[in-house]
Amino acid sequence: MTDVELGVPLRDVEESMLEFEGKRYLDGRASDPRELGWMRGAPPPKDRRITFESDSYFDFPQNRWSLSHMRELVATVNVWRGQGAPSQFERSDKTADIDALTFADKDGRIRRFDEALFDTYADGIVVLHRGRIVYERYFGALEPHLPHACYSVTKSYAGALTAAFVHEGVLDDSKMIPHYLPELRGTAWQDATLRQVMDMQTGLAHTEEYAPGDRSSDAWTYRIASGRRPRPDSYGGPRTACDYLRTVRKQGTHGEAFAYKSINTDVMAWVMARVTGRSFAQLLHERLWSPLGCEEDGYVIVDPIGLPLAGGGLNATLRDLARFGELIRREGEWNGKQLIPASVVHDIQEGDHPAKLPAIGYSYRSQWWVPHNELGAIEARGLYGQRIYVAPKAEMVIARFASHPLAPARYNDVISVPQMLALGRMLRE
Amino acid sequence: MTDVELGVPLRDVEESMLEFEGKRYLDGRASDPRELGWMRGAPPPKDRRITFESDSYFDFPQNRWSLSHMRELVATVNVWRGQGAPSQFERSDKTADIDALTFADKDGRIRRFDEALFDTYADGIVVLHRGRIVYERYFGALEPHLPHACYSVTKSYAGALTAAFVHEGVLDDSKMIPHYLPELRGTAWQDATLRQVMDMQTGLAHTEEYAPGDRSSDAWTYRIASGRRPRPDSYGGPRTACDYLRTVRKQGTHGEAFAYKSINTDVMAWVMARVTGRSFAQLLHERLWSPLGCEEDGYVIVDPIGLPLAGGGLNATLRDLARFGELIRREGEWNGKQLIPASVVHDIQEGDHPAKLPAIGYSYRSQWWVPHNELGAIEARGLYGQRIYVAPKAEMVIARFASHPLAPARYNDVISVPQMLALGRMLRE
Repeated sequence: MTDVELGVPLRDVEESMLEFEGKRYLDGRASDPRELGWMRGAPPPKDRRITFESDSYFDFPQNRWSLSHMRELVATVNVWRGQGAPSQFERSDKTADIDALTFADKDGRIRRFDEALFDTYADGIVVLHRGRIVYERYFGALEPHLPHACYSVTKSYAGALTAAFVHEGVLDDSKMIPHYLPELRGTAWQDATLRQVMDMQTGLAHTEEYAPGDRSSDAWTYRIASGRRPRPDSYGGPRTACDYLRTVRKQGTHGEAFAYKSINTDVMAWVMARVTGRSFAQLLHERLWSPLGCEEDGYVIVDPIGLPLAGGGLNATLRDLARFGELIRREGEWNGKQLIPASVVHDIQEGDHPAKLPAIGYSYRSQWWVPHNELGAIEARGLYGQRIYVAPKAEMVIARFASHPLAPARYNDVISVPQMLALGRMLRE
Repeated sequence: MTDVELGVPLRDVEESMLEFEGKRYLDGRASDPRELGWMRGAPPPKDRRITFESDSYFDFPQNRWSLSHMRELVATVNVWRGQGAPSQFERSDKTADIDALTFADKDGRIRRFDEALFDTYADGIVVLHRGRIVYERYFGALEPHLPHACYSVTKSYAGALTAAFVHEGVLDDSKMIPHYLPELRGTAWQDATLRQVMDMQTGLAHTEEYAPGDRSSDAWTYRIASGRRPRPDSYGGPRTACDYLRTVRKQGTHGEAFAYKSINTDVMAWVMARVTGRSFAQLLHERLWSPLGCEEDGYVIVDPIGLPLAGGGLNATLRDLARFGELIRREGEWNGKQLIPASVVHDIQEGDHPAKLPAIGYSYRSQWWVPHNELGAIEARGLYGQRIYVAPKAEMVIARFASHPLAPARYNDVISVPQMLALGRMLRE
């Protein structure tokens, strides 16, 4: 698709483009799916339809609509909020101050906070300070009550639950995976411990890359098996998530190096489901959505036999994402109840040795990213710019959805890592 | 699938079977999907999986699970309940009396009310008397907070909304369909009025039969086009609901006879969407779900380009179904607001000439069934036994979900028509 085909409204096209990896894309404003008319009309015009079978709903600029409408494209299971009244946020509005905040991005360019949201294709952001909403904005297709794709932020929900079960003695993270899932004997996970899976320290013959235009990575095949991409006629591979997992072989050594593979999370959630007898969606309802008093039901994409995909299938509203971040900032305690053990939160905050991720100085623990920064922050991170940022030393939580043209976090990080740090510093003062 | 393959639990198999059309089926208790283990386990055993691609999720006994889990099989759009607190039902429990009520079915057999629920494969029932819940039961896979497939009960929601728009002057039911949808010129609807479509009095070259085991009817092809059945490799037909509708040709005369064709409803809802600029799901939210104070979000199955299917795609909880029934019993008024004009309700209650449906003595008006009985009842009816029964003269509303082995209503009607009438007579006293 060329730039011209994207149907830019009548305005200065040159000004409306951003460049990544030598390619130009409509910027955050110009790619607003309402302006572009995606999925508007009954029926939408042919060149403005977003369908599952086109295999492009996660491509830019379609993703600017589809990430707020995933259930209209794929099968999903509900995460029920329960019968109680939603918990309420107090508000202490700081919109004007935060909008005007300036910071230097990683390339040294000075940016305004509000403009940086457009430059990172934000669909929405909620900032909590001391538990109060100080900033809340929605863009494009997102609305306060609409669940948005969390992608790998899902992993941090699953990781917190798994770590809680380990703390409670329901699971033993020193056990090998086949102890819980005998059907994974003979696979890569034959001699991997649950802890190695939780910390992404397994050696798997499985590639996971999301380079633009390249779908040769194994992660794309896994999406076919798990029902998130249409099956080509020629496809002869596994037809469920579990069937795919059973084909994965070992490569290298477990426990030596960090290697981010989403399939580890689905193995981890499979262990939880097997042992508790509850699906990931049920556990989210019982342990988080209901006791947190979430405002809206969430949902999780399911595979062709109904398995909720814990590696990246959760969809939630921005405020409900913020509730979970605030729970973690409060060390797992909510209205006098310990929903996640405090020791689990502390263990995540401590992280692992940053040398394992030298490129960015982060470490990774129980499916959370640890930047080891001055705010004591931990992060849940997902493709296209999904984020929960919990910064205890600034008493701040940021929940943020985005639909960036490029999937990998690094395209967002250039701007959003210094942006979040700058906001934390401002609120800490 | 033979009887033996259905995995009857260890009990007297002979006692657990019912016969329809010379074929034997597990009865209501023995086909409980929890007992049979459908979709239980991570992953479910191969012989207990229910998938979209098997093209059998609507077949018995799988339908006993899938009708409470449609969104886990197909793409859907949310019907948001809004932000307000749900409206509350008062209760005046009459379970014991109603359970013990006896009545003669159409074949003269005396039945107890509670046993008749099992004999008609009920998934749940709520009975309101003077707006209070007097009876509420759930069976099998259904739970109070779970939306269940409404099938053609959906039509009565769509019909009430369309009739309201006609009353408000937004639509003119004397206009020909192409007045609103120029793309339907040259199709069967070229010279059909909106009113003829609303009342199913069109002559369409399109068959709609749901005989067991026979999928040769056009309605089954329409399900492929609209995304509710997998597309066979050999399929070369339309790939969206609207594209299918554009292929339908006229057969016979419009306005002469009642001919029940679900595609009329999708045309009707397409007109609403075109004129209001709101999708059927948005209209349900704005005009019904939010003002009625529904307890849970509903949802509607969408076609491959996101069109909510008004002919049969709605899923709702039983209590929210009852709220809609109660709204109609109150002649469209709810908490001082007229959500549906009273004249629309009166017009439906008046019905059409029963001679148009001589076999059952009903008539049909604005997508509602009118039995012209002593209770002044009107009914919303859907495949497999879905029902709203509004009986003003008994101040009674029945909302009921079921998953009968056979789709057509007549298999249910033998028992449930006299059952509902008997209950109305009892409550009227």
